[in-house]
Amino acid sequence: MLMHTLHVDLGERGYPLYIGKDLLADEQLLSQHVTGSQVVVVSNETVAPLYVDRVITALGDRQLLTKIVLPDGEQYKTMDTLSTIFDQVVADRHNRSTTFVAVGGGVIGDITGFAAACYQRGVNFLQIPTTLLAQVDSSVGGKTAVNHPLGKNMIGTFYQPRAVLIDIDTLQSLPPRELSAGLAEVVKYGLIRDEPFYRWLQEHMPRLLAREDAALAEVIERSCAIKAEVVAADERESGVRAILNLGHTFGHAIEAGQGYGAWLHGEAVATGMVLAVELSVRRGWIVASEAEDCRELLRGMRLPVGIPGDMDAQGFLSHMAYDKKIVDGRMRLVLLRAIGEACIVDDADKKELHALLDGAAKHE
Amino acid sequence: MLMHTLHVDLGERGYPLYIGKDLLADEQLLSQHVTGSQVVVVSNETVAPLYVDRVITALGDRQLLTKIVLPDGEQYKTMDTLSTIFDQVVADRHNRSTTFVAVGGGVIGDITGFAAACYQRGVNFLQIPTTLLAQVDSSVGGKTAVNHPLGKNMIGTFYQPRAVLIDIDTLQSLPPRELSAGLAEVVKYGLIRDEPFYRWLQEHMPRLLAREDAALAEVIERSCAIKAEVVAADERESGVRAILNLGHTFGHAIEAGQGYGAWLHGEAVATGMVLAVELSVRRGWIVASEAEDCRELLRGMRLPVGIPGDMDAQGFLSHMAYDKKIVDGRMRLVLLRAIGEACIVDDADKKELHALLDGAAKHE
Repeated sequence: MLMHTLHVDLGERGYPLYIGKDLLADEQLLSQHVTGSQVVVVSNETVAPLYVDRVITALGDRQLLTKIVLPDGEQYKTMDTLSTIFDQVVADRHNRSTTFVAVGGGVIGDITGFAAACYQRGVNFLQIPTTLLAQVDSSVGGKTAVNHPLGKNMIGTFYQPRAVLIDIDTLQSLPPRELSAGLAEVVKYGLIRDEPFYRWLQEHMPRLLAREDAALAEVIERSCAIKAEVVAADERESGVRAILNLGHTFGHAIEAGQGYGAWLHGEAVATGMVLAVELSVRRGWIVASEAEDCRELLRGMRLPVGIPGDMDAQGFLSHMAYDKKIVDGRMRLVLLRAIGEACIVDDADKKELHALLDGAAKHE
Repeated sequence: MLMHTLHVDLGERGYPLYIGKDLLADEQLLSQHVTGSQVVVVSNETVAPLYVDRVITALGDRQLLTKIVLPDGEQYKTMDTLSTIFDQVVADRHNRSTTFVAVGGGVIGDITGFAAACYQRGVNFLQIPTTLLAQVDSSVGGKTAVNHPLGKNMIGTFYQPRAVLIDIDTLQSLPPRELSAGLAEVVKYGLIRDEPFYRWLQEHMPRLLAREDAALAEVIERSCAIKAEVVAADERESGVRAILNLGHTFGHAIEAGQGYGAWLHGEAVATGMVLAVELSVRRGWIVASEAEDCRELLRGMRLPVGIPGDMDAQGFLSHMAYDKKIVDGRMRLVLLRAIGEACIVDDADKKELHALLDGAAKHE
């Protein structure tokens, strides 16, 4: 059942994004966007048993179908895993007319998109994100990547899918921790660009935690619409798109510092947003009570709001030094001028960041 | 000394191509296209001692300069080598404003371009090709790639450089075998698109083998102009661009069959072109004496015109089955309707190819 359709407006690279129930077994939608006789379905060990056979059945008869099931976890988003995908696809003799279909969360989407971008210099790509995080984040914008041991998403491309199928039924089987991680990115959209949406989230949080279909579909549609608008204005992140990174520079430092996979991306972003909001308070842009309300909202979503117990300011800063957002030695950070209004600063110095991190609450 | 400037016309991805003497030490040209304070220079063990220090000196003072010297040879154009490039560049903390400079032949250009395309989702890229093959082939068109053990250039992207500096002085130090390999691609341009150029080559071959500056500059300019025209019409090879693959499907089979590096790419293409021309004769499109003249021209350029002694028709066909030019099971081949006029066929069947390969002369 189709509930919303969005169009991501990127000219000849534009694509539709479908939101609804039972979409991953929608033969008509699949056949509309997987046009060739060859398909590569990529998933992971957790998601594959739940959904992949249904996708494959709905894909119907194909001349060549390769199913690749990767181990589950951010720690496998590597060049080595990418190579194993290529090994299987080349061995099965997929050609330029093949379609890569990603069925899974952000890791599966990112690595499958990167593989599709590079296999024979680019083949058709369809995304079926099965986590809330992937549905509201990686399904819009065309960022693909693998991690490097020294930095997240260091190696990748911009590559747009042909279409994205968001099946909200997949959220019913999502572990609570993963649902919360996705909600962190949802809160981000409100904070950076849409105060009414942020207020709506504060009010309707219980419906989201109860996984009500209508509330979930609403949140996904509104998040994707905000992201699509930002990405359409700046596809390759030369300007405004950077506001989507609210909380991410701090968050990436947590992920790298704790070892990829220890904290979920959304969890690290939640704590990162708390730090960004706190820095905005220190600059006098946000009142302290708003920061407390924000922590409260995130806490209610069962997200961490304190930094890891074993990371001090120095640990943060050394990891932040590898971040992609650094341009010519200046660290660019996304802060808030107000709730619903992000801004980018490049004048945060070590002293200011030290004070912020020294004063940050620790995660219990 | 600048002798020619061409513009590769690809809209916002268009770029200039400079042909001349002593260009790799041209501070002004370099500073015009390497604008940031960070540079990664990639070369190989053969080329680096000859030219890299001059390039680095001409680049002037930079905040961060990483020199990467790879082993020499097609067998190193792999995912593993790509990973070692990323390891060094990430460790040195290059950011999005860095520029990758490739100094070397086609292998260095292809892998450095691919690395530039993927590092932090794409950074600035400058090409300084030092072999004739790279100057007339990979410097135009934006194809980047690494090989897979089962197929050449299986993994890569389309990524255009900011500029290409072709320094013809580098051809004076080129081993004769490498010069010949480059001439094979030059002959290809005449065969597919420009009969007068092909006749000019037949007449002026001795000047090229004697490495006369004016003749070399002329040949490079004309070859690049033909390629630029074809690429501008079809950047992502959905149609006419495929004619640039004359001799390549057969050639790739030779390269894979003999192990990458045993035959130079240009040598394999020379033999591949002989096979394509012979097939065109069998179809009645070219007269047999033209095929003999073509073999004569290539032989005069010290290029192989017979297939490897240990490869039979079956060996060829199994390697050709992996080729990227196969679309939905049909093998597409570039043949000649006439000298200077290529066409693409997809109706060559196994029987026809068997007869061609069974009848082909063996390389002595």
